[in-house]
Amino acid sequence: MTRHKKKRLLKTSFEHVFILSYLLKWTVLAVPMSIAVGSLIAFFLWLLDKAIHFRFGHPWLLFLLPAAGVLIYGLYTYLGKNSDKGNNLIMDEIHEPGGGVPFRMAPLVLITTVITHLFGGSAGREGTAVQIGGSIAQFFAKKLKLSQEDVKTFLMTGIAAGFGAVFGTPITGAIFALEVLALGRIKHDALLPCFIASVVADITCAAWGIHHTHYAIRFAEEGKVFFGIFHLDIVLLLKVILGGVLFGLAGYIFAELSHTIKNYSNRFIRIKWLIPFIGGCIVIALTCIIGTQDYLSLGVSNPDPDAVSILSCFKAGGATDFSWFWKLLFTAVTLGMGFKGGEVTPLFFVGAALGNTIAAHTGAPADLMAGLGFIAVFASATNTPIACTFMGIELFGADNVLYYAVACFTAYYFSGHAGIYHAQRIAVSKV
Amino acid sequence: MTRHKKKRLLKTSFEHVFILSYLLKWTVLAVPMSIAVGSLIAFFLWLLDKAIHFRFGHPWLLFLLPAAGVLIYGLYTYLGKNSDKGNNLIMDEIHEPGGGVPFRMAPLVLITTVITHLFGGSAGREGTAVQIGGSIAQFFAKKLKLSQEDVKTFLMTGIAAGFGAVFGTPITGAIFALEVLALGRIKHDALLPCFIASVVADITCAAWGIHHTHYAIRFAEEGKVFFGIFHLDIVLLLKVILGGVLFGLAGYIFAELSHTIKNYSNRFIRIKWLIPFIGGCIVIALTCIIGTQDYLSLGVSNPDPDAVSILSCFKAGGATDFSWFWKLLFTAVTLGMGFKGGEVTPLFFVGAALGNTIAAHTGAPADLMAGLGFIAVFASATNTPIACTFMGIELFGADNVLYYAVACFTAYYFSGHAGIYHAQRIAVSKV
Repeated sequence: MTRHKKKRLLKTSFEHVFILSYLLKWTVLAVPMSIAVGSLIAFFLWLLDKAIHFRFGHPWLLFLLPAAGVLIYGLYTYLGKNSDKGNNLIMDEIHEPGGGVPFRMAPLVLITTVITHLFGGSAGREGTAVQIGGSIAQFFAKKLKLSQEDVKTFLMTGIAAGFGAVFGTPITGAIFALEVLALGRIKHDALLPCFIASVVADITCAAWGIHHTHYAIRFAEEGKVFFGIFHLDIVLLLKVILGGVLFGLAGYIFAELSHTIKNYSNRFIRIKWLIPFIGGCIVIALTCIIGTQDYLSLGVSNPDPDAVSILSCFKAGGATDFSWFWKLLFTAVTLGMGFKGGEVTPLFFVGAALGNTIAAHTGAPADLMAGLGFIAVFASATNTPIACTFMGIELFGADNVLYYAVACFTAYYFSGHAGIYHAQRIAVSKV
Repeated sequence: MTRHKKKRLLKTSFEHVFILSYLLKWTVLAVPMSIAVGSLIAFFLWLLDKAIHFRFGHPWLLFLLPAAGVLIYGLYTYLGKNSDKGNNLIMDEIHEPGGGVPFRMAPLVLITTVITHLFGGSAGREGTAVQIGGSIAQFFAKKLKLSQEDVKTFLMTGIAAGFGAVFGTPITGAIFALEVLALGRIKHDALLPCFIASVVADITCAAWGIHHTHYAIRFAEEGKVFFGIFHLDIVLLLKVILGGVLFGLAGYIFAELSHTIKNYSNRFIRIKWLIPFIGGCIVIALTCIIGTQDYLSLGVSNPDPDAVSILSCFKAGGATDFSWFWKLLFTAVTLGMGFKGGEVTPLFFVGAALGNTIAAHTGAPADLMAGLGFIAVFASATNTPIACTFMGIELFGADNVLYYAVACFTAYYFSGHAGIYHAQRIAVSKV
């Protein structure tokens, strides 16, 4: 059917009835799934919080990290089926449906992520949330005997639900699910189903009493006039553009380093359970060398007021010049050598720390640059500039929305075509 | 070249050098064009403001509307070449380059839009701005002898520059240019060039001293907790969803009615200059029947404090139950029968008035619902839900961003596949 014919057909044959029934169907399908995902994410966040705080009280747990790595390896080898492919498996299943996402992925990734954090591995949460969302969605889809096309949509809503709930950012969750699948494109084909899922999962997660960390950018230049004519600070704009370039390169380095560590350790270490064991040992060694535990685990906050954390990066002097690099290295080793969790929260850390450093050297406001790094390194490593602009808005408010877009869009270009998800396709090349 | 090969090639062959040179090239190309577009838009907005205020002082000008219509017809017939295809011509040229966009489109649409408003035709500004942007971009592209592929990108940056400058919303301008071309898709291929153009044009326009109307949604529910567990007002959410459905249907009715009026008047009125003449007479007749000039011209504000305008719709009691319909009808007649201008500001009016009415009948906050209607009817008629969510953020701030997305995404689905631009392709069907 030609495009023109299709357009006419759609226009003439009761399209509103089709659309209404489509939306009702997806609302009925997505709501129970999203409540399940939101609840599981709430449980995950609660457990994660317990594990992180337990480790703060018992820093010696780090020395068990190599053993924890072997345990995680064992769990995935004996129980995992193909669960260890993680986010990439879900994305592959959306592009080209195969064997499906196993249900065991959800409990496995939940438990192993908590283990990773309990023993100090540097990792995040979004990978876990997306995998919980994807495998719960697949489980529902199987029970409901959905068609292949519907399973694809349902997996996308699962990603949206997981992402929206884990960060408390429902719009970002929906746009992320649409934008991450292929580099350079957002397809609106599941816009409302994804959004419904993301909102419901977020509401559910919040209803369980989960609170998300509040980040604040106090900087606001509203109403100022520069050089007599500009309502925008051109000098600050140039600093933000420079920041965008560096954030993009940081995302690029992270993606390349993770892939390289993964490939080399798989090639050169024949005994596979040794990979996470050695990875754990490297994390311990790095910690001893730089003499701080600040770059372990999630890093959102830290009971030690002098420690470097994402929150400290929003204050001037809250990070050292190399904080961003250490967090990047710790995370690339942790995730590249078999531990579990997401990449996104560490990317927030890398970005916020790098932003703090750029602010210190250029005289830009620390909170603004930290916030921009927070979203832009993530935008660059996952190739999702529009979702990350929304994330800035949902987390920090709209006062500086122009700078969010400048930083995210610029960083997107400077990350090249690699990205952290190898299942992400290239829809539109960047040049 | 297969996708995989391309990916590898891009990854290995100095991609950052390519990307940097691509961005430098487009910065150098887009900045002068955007300064020209921004300046012309500033002149246009200044002139438009004069014309609108002159008409407020001389309401009898309305009776010359039929003659003004004939004048506009004459200008396009004898000087216009294919300029009268307007926005659709620019979109067609981006999809499939043909004879190009004539330079004369810019001055012609500028003058005829001002004429339309001077004599009380109900129209907007964005069509004019986009056409100014497109034809200036084509002019630069021709002088610079750009390749066909580059001309496409340059036309997109022209749309972004025009849109960003005319409403003072640079992010929306860029996303709109990418989203409007094909229903159901955003391609990132010109993301940064469009954004640069939009920002520069907006800065330029503001530097000329142009101020944009400030709309305020004072409603904010931050921090409230409902039913003991929800951090979101579920009842209000349901009202917003209902609003989204109605906003979508309003956009649909507007698109259908405009097309129908255009088609029927072209079919049944053989003497072509009679079409705008009769159109002008219908507008006069409608004005006499309902006994108010509130639905003429732009309608953003009105010196009469009791008049219905976009600004009045943000206050409870600021619109009657049928205000939205009258504005819709006035605009469909004006634009469907040969007058010039955009559709967007009237769509803002229709949406804000409908939102005001929905608020009055459901007990929702008037400013919130007016703001949601403002962006959502536009989202539905142009099929650009993500751009319109950004517009809400850029115009009203982020406090209610979740509701913007709910309203725009829902409205998008309920407008069907028609839309006001027949050159818009269907990339991804809505069902």
